[in-house]
Amino acid sequence: MSKARARDLGLDFPGEPGPHNAITDVPGVLVGYTTLIEGDGPLVVGQGPVRTGVTAILPRGHDTTPRPVWAGQFSLNGNGEMTGTHWIHDAGYFVGPVCITNTHAVGMVHHAATRWMLGHYAESFNARHLWAMPVVAETYDGTLNDINGQHVREEHALAAIRHAAAGFPAEGNVGGGTGMVCYEFKGGTGSASRRVALGGESYSVGALVQANHGTRDWLTILGAPVGRELREDLIAERECGSIIVVLGTDAPLAPLSLRHLAKRAAIGIGRHGTPGGNNSGDIFLAFSVANPMDLPQLSAAKLAFEHLNGEVLDPLYLAAVEAVEEAVVNALVAAEDMPTLRPAGKVCRAIDHDRLVAVMRRYNRCR
Amino acid sequence: MSKARARDLGLDFPGEPGPHNAITDVPGVLVGYTTLIEGDGPLVVGQGPVRTGVTAILPRGHDTTPRPVWAGQFSLNGNGEMTGTHWIHDAGYFVGPVCITNTHAVGMVHHAATRWMLGHYAESFNARHLWAMPVVAETYDGTLNDINGQHVREEHALAAIRHAAAGFPAEGNVGGGTGMVCYEFKGGTGSASRRVALGGESYSVGALVQANHGTRDWLTILGAPVGRELREDLIAERECGSIIVVLGTDAPLAPLSLRHLAKRAAIGIGRHGTPGGNNSGDIFLAFSVANPMDLPQLSAAKLAFEHLNGEVLDPLYLAAVEAVEEAVVNALVAAEDMPTLRPAGKVCRAIDHDRLVAVMRRYNRCR
Amino acid sequence: MSKARARDLGLDFPGEPGPHNAITDVPGVLVGYTTLIEGDGPLVVGQGPVRTGVTAILPRGHDTTPRPVWAGQFSLNGNGEMTGTHWIHDAGYFVGPVCITNTHAVGMVHHAATRWMLGHYAESFNARHLWAMPVVAETYDGTLNDINGQHVREEHALAAIRHAAAGFPAEGNVGGGTGMVCYEFKGGTGSASRRVALGGESYSVGALVQANHGTRDWLTILGAPVGRELREDLIAERECGSIIVVLGTDAPLAPLSLRHLAKRAAIGIGRHGTPGGNNSGDIFLAFSVANPMDLPQLSAAKLAFEHLNGEVLDPLYLAAVEAVEEAVVNALVAAEDMPTLRPAGKVCRAIDHDRLVAVMRRYNRCR
Amino acid sequence: MSKARARDLGLDFPGEPGPHNAITDVPGVLVGYTTLIEGDGPLVVGQGPVRTGVTAILPRGHDTTPRPVWAGQFSLNGNGEMTGTHWIHDAGYFVGPVCITNTHAVGMVHHAATRWMLGHYAESFNARHLWAMPVVAETYDGTLNDINGQHVREEHALAAIRHAAAGFPAEGNVGGGTGMVCYEFKGGTGSASRRVALGGESYSVGALVQANHGTRDWLTILGAPVGRELREDLIAERECGSIIVVLGTDAPLAPLSLRHLAKRAAIGIGRHGTPGGNNSGDIFLAFSVANPMDLPQLSAAKLAFEHLNGEVLDPLYLAAVEAVEEAVVNALVAAEDMPTLRPAGKVCRAIDHDRLVAVMRRYNRCR
Repeated sequence: MSKARARDLGLDFPGEPGPHNAITDVPGVLVGYTTLIEGDGPLVVGQGPVRTGVTAILPRGHDTTPRPVWAGQFSLNGNGEMTGTHWIHDAGYFVGPVCITNTHAVGMVHHAATRWMLGHYAESFNARHLWAMPVVAETYDGTLNDINGQHVREEHALAAIRHAAAGFPAEGNVGGGTGMVCYEFKGGTGSASRRVALGGESYSVGALVQANHGTRDWLTILGAPVGRELREDLIAERECGSIIVVLGTDAPLAPLSLRHLAKRAAIGIGRHGTPGGNNSGDIFLAFSVANPMDLPQLSAAKLAFEHLNGEVLDPLYLAAVEAVEEAVVNALVAAEDMPTLRPAGKVCRAIDHDRLVAVMRRYNRCR
Repeated sequence: MSKARARDLGLDFPGEPGPHNAITDVPGVLVGYTTLIEGDGPLVVGQGPVRTGVTAILPRGHDTTPRPVWAGQFSLNGNGEMTGTHWIHDAGYFVGPVCITNTHAVGMVHHAATRWMLGHYAESFNARHLWAMPVVAETYDGTLNDINGQHVREEHALAAIRHAAAGFPAEGNVGGGTGMVCYEFKGGTGSASRRVALGGESYSVGALVQANHGTRDWLTILGAPVGRELREDLIAERECGSIIVVLGTDAPLAPLSLRHLAKRAAIGIGRHGTPGGNNSGDIFLAFSVANPMDLPQLSAAKLAFEHLNGEVLDPLYLAAVEAVEEAVVNALVAAEDMPTLRPAGKVCRAIDHDRLVAVMRRYNRCR
Repeated sequence: MSKARARDLGLDFPGEPGPHNAITDVPGVLVGYTTLIEGDGPLVVGQGPVRTGVTAILPRGHDTTPRPVWAGQFSLNGNGEMTGTHWIHDAGYFVGPVCITNTHAVGMVHHAATRWMLGHYAESFNARHLWAMPVVAETYDGTLNDINGQHVREEHALAAIRHAAAGFPAEGNVGGGTGMVCYEFKGGTGSASRRVALGGESYSVGALVQANHGTRDWLTILGAPVGRELREDLIAERECGSIIVVLGTDAPLAPLSLRHLAKRAAIGIGRHGTPGGNNSGDIFLAFSVANPMDLPQLSAAKLAFEHLNGEVLDPLYLAAVEAVEEAVVNALVAAEDMPTLRPAGKVCRAIDHDRLVAVMRRYNRCR
Repeated sequence: MSKARARDLGLDFPGEPGPHNAITDVPGVLVGYTTLIEGDGPLVVGQGPVRTGVTAILPRGHDTTPRPVWAGQFSLNGNGEMTGTHWIHDAGYFVGPVCITNTHAVGMVHHAATRWMLGHYAESFNARHLWAMPVVAETYDGTLNDINGQHVREEHALAAIRHAAAGFPAEGNVGGGTGMVCYEFKGGTGSASRRVALGGESYSVGALVQANHGTRDWLTILGAPVGRELREDLIAERECGSIIVVLGTDAPLAPLSLRHLAKRAAIGIGRHGTPGGNNSGDIFLAFSVANPMDLPQLSAAKLAFEHLNGEVLDPLYLAAVEAVEEAVVNALVAAEDMPTLRPAGKVCRAIDHDRLVAVMRRYNRCR
């Protein structure tokens, strides 16, 4: 609650954030977590230790009527998983929660998210032929978690969805972000948002990231070569992580524009130095809560749609880049030390706030 | 075993099939099924009746060393799910089984396929950082099965994988194809293959389909307007199914060529009249067992690769079209009647062989 | 004018065509041609003979205000060119004419189409920063034309655009289709259309093809194996052509739906037997004249848009498939014999109407 | 020749450049320009002034045998043109030169590049059916050039191709980059390269950009907020430019990897602050000169190919990002003032080297 965030440290991020500086600034968007931290000692596959979890984003809150959100998806580097994207590409919408977990829990979380949809939307699903195709994404936490033990169970995912709430979402070692490593610092979940004025109205764009990517030498923050300056506690010979970015907005965007928005996440993460490594699943989703509608199956033959002209979208693209950029640093700043399992016996350290600020000052990038 | 297949009825399919006229003609490719048929009476969500299952295709058989197959993917209409495709698009390979099930079992089958990979390949996965990203696809069987009851369990998927075998694979109401409806006839699983001579060598291309698509009036077989002639036992007001096509080959194809091969499945299914309906997840995968290699993570910096020049591939594209075309008809011909649950009280009839032959003769398309 | 079209021969095409059974049934869509047939004798590169041309489709007629049409594009096999598609993919619209010519005239026709836009829309283009990105596509006519002589000049393309007109457009050896070869018969330009009732309203979908693809043995028409029956006058060892398909409609479709429509052209051409050969640029465009608007640069920040729900589109997809299918046969039926240049000394024969009808009757596919 | 480049100013770019710090460090790659600067005074459409040109990159030099280079393409924002990409996407190669010019000269340059290929490769093209599909890209120079006058003629493009040479290529106001505006400073052509050690061997990756994008307030260089500090001589209300990036390498990359390389250009340009504006055609091409081969049409049925394992490519991706990043700054640093035509009466100023260095020092980003 009182944890410092990147902006609190004085880092000179551009743009105007929303009240929570988080994806939950987008009206109706809720975030919930199940965090699993159990056991210590050395890795015994199947027995732990467990440091993983599930993150759930509900674009339409707990509404029991299934209502799509418009969406677009882009993969900078597809070495990972995000389900539900074939239809997002072709139809530009999805229904239900977005869940993020570890790589080997994708199936169980997909099963649970489907179950939740079948129950929560039972009135619709039992009345006609409808199919649930939830969005489930992942990053790999095998450095810090017994990932091959598949410790995430159905109830864990259901709890993350059911407890999703408004307000500032926790950051760092929470939910699917529990066991993340980012630029060889402790990574995790981070969020940020921006307010944007377009065509006389004001909109929010928010990002939530599960940040598990990067090697130390790549790391720059606001242009400062942080990874060159902070060389202690390196833990990886090479990158073996990924980053999932979820962007939400209340700006009325056409599906093609939402795909553009998702693409801009590549620039947002690129600002910290990653070139999009081969082992990294850099997979991005963008959705808009505007233009609410019933399921297409229940809707009229002709649909009215209002969307922002591409000509005015540059500030929104920039806001998305900035929100993603800040969300990654928020994940780093909120994270806490965690011992490693593979390689055993090290500690994955959170970035030291004071030392970070000292570097940033050296490059005049701290207020 | 002694069931008639489409070719046995004298239908004038072009091309030369392999010995099993099935995807298992591709060396090393195995197919396994778990078929769940339990209960009758009316639908009670969560209690059944159950008519569903899991189909498993093992491109590399039961080898305990994880070895990729080269692959390409294409969606004619993305209203469905096939996991694992982000990396197939970007890297052109996948590792592990391909499973096909019903829409609401995708998660559980993904969980099980992951578990199987973690166990079967334990030596590799427990020795270093590797991640399982299995390919799991689906079609919707809610007309004939209590799909919202999520009756597929982990052991069902594991059994399908473990029992995968060479030889002629069963067709019709088996595995993931158990509860399918195709052109308003009973659908299901079908397979076919072709032998192709390219550049002085002979290769196999095989297709396996889970056929759940189409409305009766669309149906043509080898150009004969079968759906216009056989009008009884219509059950749908509209299409609510899908088709998954898996193509395998031993021809050494580059990933880009495998994506081309997958695209050709659109022509194969289009020959029966479907225009690729909006509610249909028409999702296709093609893989090649040639150019065997270790996991990239375990391989040398520089890889040698041998692939067929695109200039010679037309016969292979044609063979893929023909194998897909015949596999769908094989699914129809092998299927057996099944009572409907939604709408209740009808019977989804298998196509009558004699009447089919009579129509085909009227159009001179039967030998 | 009084030339027979495929339907006139009694071929049993499904669906209800519009009044012209052509793309010009879409309100406001005009078609113009420049046909260049000069010289005979053997090929002397740079000197002829010349049998080529330019086809121009004006989605918005001769309106001097530049108004986009919404659009989607798909390549079944990208061995060809269609300019303007990067922005069609990303923004879902294009402005100005669609031109089709021979492969080595793409540049000159693009230059001319740009010039025409700069002149025709001068009031807009000279008043502010606007850029012309015309759609120019091609197929290869080097079998019948001195393609390497680059005989198409700026004025030829300008004339095709300027003379674009409503009503039935000529077919066969006209415009860009002049020197085409299709399934080793003389190919060329063909068109067809369908009327579709959707959601209580009636819409047109029209196709225009420049058909230059296929080998004889592949050819089926309405399922009848025509290529197996008509074996004379084969001219190619292998395919070296392509097909461009342009689909227009007045149905209000979202850009994603227009991309779906373009994809369906693959099924339409596949019905004649092509598997999408490696040497064939099978490149498709679909546009909708509905939702007329000013250039985005001149429009409001927020745009209203009305589009058909994907749920009702199946009849439109089917109509697109059927229109493409019939347009290719119309191209074949309207074409006329032409001597070959490479290989020299043969004649590329038009399909014989009587023999075609005889084959179709044998397969009961002729009314 | 003795012009300062960005690195000469002491800017702290990471990585080790090749001898020319340019795309011509890739063995065999040549660059040529035609620069057209004629007339002054106010804009009279069709009469000038003319400040434009053509840039030609020859991946295989002046070899008269047409030999493909392997390639991949990616558009961050497709509001522009790059021809030849349908086949690059599907087959992973192209043949002939890459030309970059202004938007309304694409057609003429395409015509000329085709003509050059038909002449230069006449022996091949006149002996069999081959088709030229050159790569021609563009950015818009209507702020500084009478772009609607279409002043680029065939001979201009031919001269750029014919004069292509090895060694350090000129930068700034040259070739297609002549009339560019970049972050509201004078933009143009820039290049840079990196040496990368992979798997025990050393490779070059080089970038050439035609930089015409960005608004001043977006501009950061190596993280320093230059655009916030240097506020004079703003000329645009909004972005109306684009950036073309061409990446070349001698590393043996598979086509899928080259597409990945092209994608990384998005991160490279993003480092300067652009979010990929809606009006900007941010279109990228990557090619590899390794794995030289004959045209597929002239090659064997089975092709051997050697390519780098994706597992080792991160340094190459990083090098591509860095080369693109530095090439844009090289374009800015080399550019020279030019008066504006629309709006008339201003001057598009080159960035002042001393002031740039002063800002960079303030952020400790200058050696």
